[in-house]
Amino acid sequence: MTIRIGIMGYGNLGRGVECAIRQNPDMELTAVFSRRNPEDVSILTEGTPVYRADDAAAHADEVDVLIICGGSATDLPEQTPKYAEFFNVVDSFDTHANIPQHFAAVDEAAKASGKVALISAGWDPGMFSLNRLYAEAILPEGETYTFWGTGVSQGHSDAVRRIDGVVDARQYTIPVEEALDAVRSGSAPELTTRQKHTRLVYVVAEEGADQSRITEEIVTMKNYFDEYDTTVKFIDAEEMARDHSGMPHGGFVIRSGRTGKDRENHHVVEYKLQLDSNPEFTSSVLAAVARAVYRMSEMGMNGARTVFDIAPAWLSIKSPEELRKTML
Amino acid sequence: MTIRIGIMGYGNLGRGVECAIRQNPDMELTAVFSRRNPEDVSILTEGTPVYRADDAAAHADEVDVLIICGGSATDLPEQTPKYAEFFNVVDSFDTHANIPQHFAAVDEAAKASGKVALISAGWDPGMFSLNRLYAEAILPEGETYTFWGTGVSQGHSDAVRRIDGVVDARQYTIPVEEALDAVRSGSAPELTTRQKHTRLVYVVAEEGADQSRITEEIVTMKNYFDEYDTTVKFIDAEEMARDHSGMPHGGFVIRSGRTGKDRENHHVVEYKLQLDSNPEFTSSVLAAVARAVYRMSEMGMNGARTVFDIAPAWLSIKSPEELRKTML
Repeated sequence: MTIRIGIMGYGNLGRGVECAIRQNPDMELTAVFSRRNPEDVSILTEGTPVYRADDAAAHADEVDVLIICGGSATDLPEQTPKYAEFFNVVDSFDTHANIPQHFAAVDEAAKASGKVALISAGWDPGMFSLNRLYAEAILPEGETYTFWGTGVSQGHSDAVRRIDGVVDARQYTIPVEEALDAVRSGSAPELTTRQKHTRLVYVVAEEGADQSRITEEIVTMKNYFDEYDTTVKFIDAEEMARDHSGMPHGGFVIRSGRTGKDRENHHVVEYKLQLDSNPEFTSSVLAAVARAVYRMSEMGMNGARTVFDIAPAWLSIKSPEELRKTML
Repeated sequence: MTIRIGIMGYGNLGRGVECAIRQNPDMELTAVFSRRNPEDVSILTEGTPVYRADDAAAHADEVDVLIICGGSATDLPEQTPKYAEFFNVVDSFDTHANIPQHFAAVDEAAKASGKVALISAGWDPGMFSLNRLYAEAILPEGETYTFWGTGVSQGHSDAVRRIDGVVDARQYTIPVEEALDAVRSGSAPELTTRQKHTRLVYVVAEEGADQSRITEEIVTMKNYFDEYDTTVKFIDAEEMARDHSGMPHGGFVIRSGRTGKDRENHHVVEYKLQLDSNPEFTSSVLAAVARAVYRMSEMGMNGARTVFDIAPAWLSIKSPEELRKTML
């Protein structure tokens, strides 16, 4: 008996989920749903049908867990509650400020249908969130710091691409080494936005474009760059394609805390991710979480959940006995 | 309503639990049990009674969760099943090879009494185990490495102290930086015991003792030192007391894995602990875990459990809503 997985949306994330399923022998990809014409969607997995997203409900009995691979801005707020009516679902909703609202909408739909709906899985929110929670529960007195990078920010790259005279752009978020060291030292520093991260932007400009004007527009851009020290480098299209086509990312969650009679002992808990492919790692988390959702559904649960509600053992292909014997 | 915690055994670990409870406003220390004469046991917490360990059962209704702070060699195999007859219990049983056997004995007792018994909490087993599980569930194709140190190994220090002519000794386990770097690089190296860790021993010798004989006995000691590169340094009692009286420890769990159509993308997940006090950090984990045990008991669960069975939210003092809003 394998867990039958459906993928809703066949972009970077959906393709990543497809690859992740191949690494999990207890899972099988049984359906891909797309807003495009199914005939135009060519997937890796032989024999698995591609259906129209609009027809998803008709295929609910072919899928144990549907992994929804849409974007957080407009897709997921609509899709996750909608598909929770017919499927156990997993999403990677990552607009932190709107999580309570999204949770409530999804919870209502999933409770009505009796399905399990796990939202906001991935690495942040997701693995980083788990590490924030564990470290704070263990060390109640202390400070938690999250750093991102070195990695590509899609949103910032897109913002630069909209500037007049820019042909292509890639933005890297880089954690400041001195800030990381200060946090690890246990001095519990207060760090400004500027002290935590720098930004590095590679730009391919139109021929004859005014590079100093483009640079100025970038470094002063509100909400995106104005609070950071930003470096802009102009390169040609060839170099962009050769050196900057990947989607690496990662970061750090560090908690610095104190224990003891007089708080005399200091402890540092650090979780670090270094990812060649941001979407593929996220997809791999979604696949593991889908296993847990399947098990939670089998246990008779329903409603919305997050990674905070998943007992770690439910994520693993191994039995509880095997886990205790080999991993504890 | 606070969670009423009992401590069984008032050594380094028990004292650490007492301090940890003060950092958790939803907990209260209501009883300490000791094998010593209660009149000889002076604790930090005012107003909390100290009872004889033998009388524990008579005080079962004063305690919601009993944290058993005995040693793994002889105390816990006997104590944890015994006290699970009367209490919800937590222990830090850390003899990895005997976990299945300990789990079975504790499970039988806790199922019979209807109590929850959580075994093998701490950092390894404990937080390191959780990180091994999470990382492998997410990246099924890869290798997991555990490194310990820099930190004091009590067992190795004790072994050196038994050598003729040794007055005092302190052994540090040190991870090899080159091995850590090789693992992080994604080359998935096979590492021998000698390649992963070195050992550094500080010895206070008796006056006139033969230092070269002591060194030889240390570096060739079977199971403890013979498979490692060991450095022995002779110091005086004053330096030992001044520089080596702490109990620092820590280490790394690193998983290196691959994803993608052709396994072309590499990811590194790294969890690192740097602890000033090994027993106090372990105690802090035990306190958080006691909260989860209390909740599991309130939910009607019974039997033995491990950290793999704890939904992370149960560890936190915060409500699920607060966790989603502030930590996800």
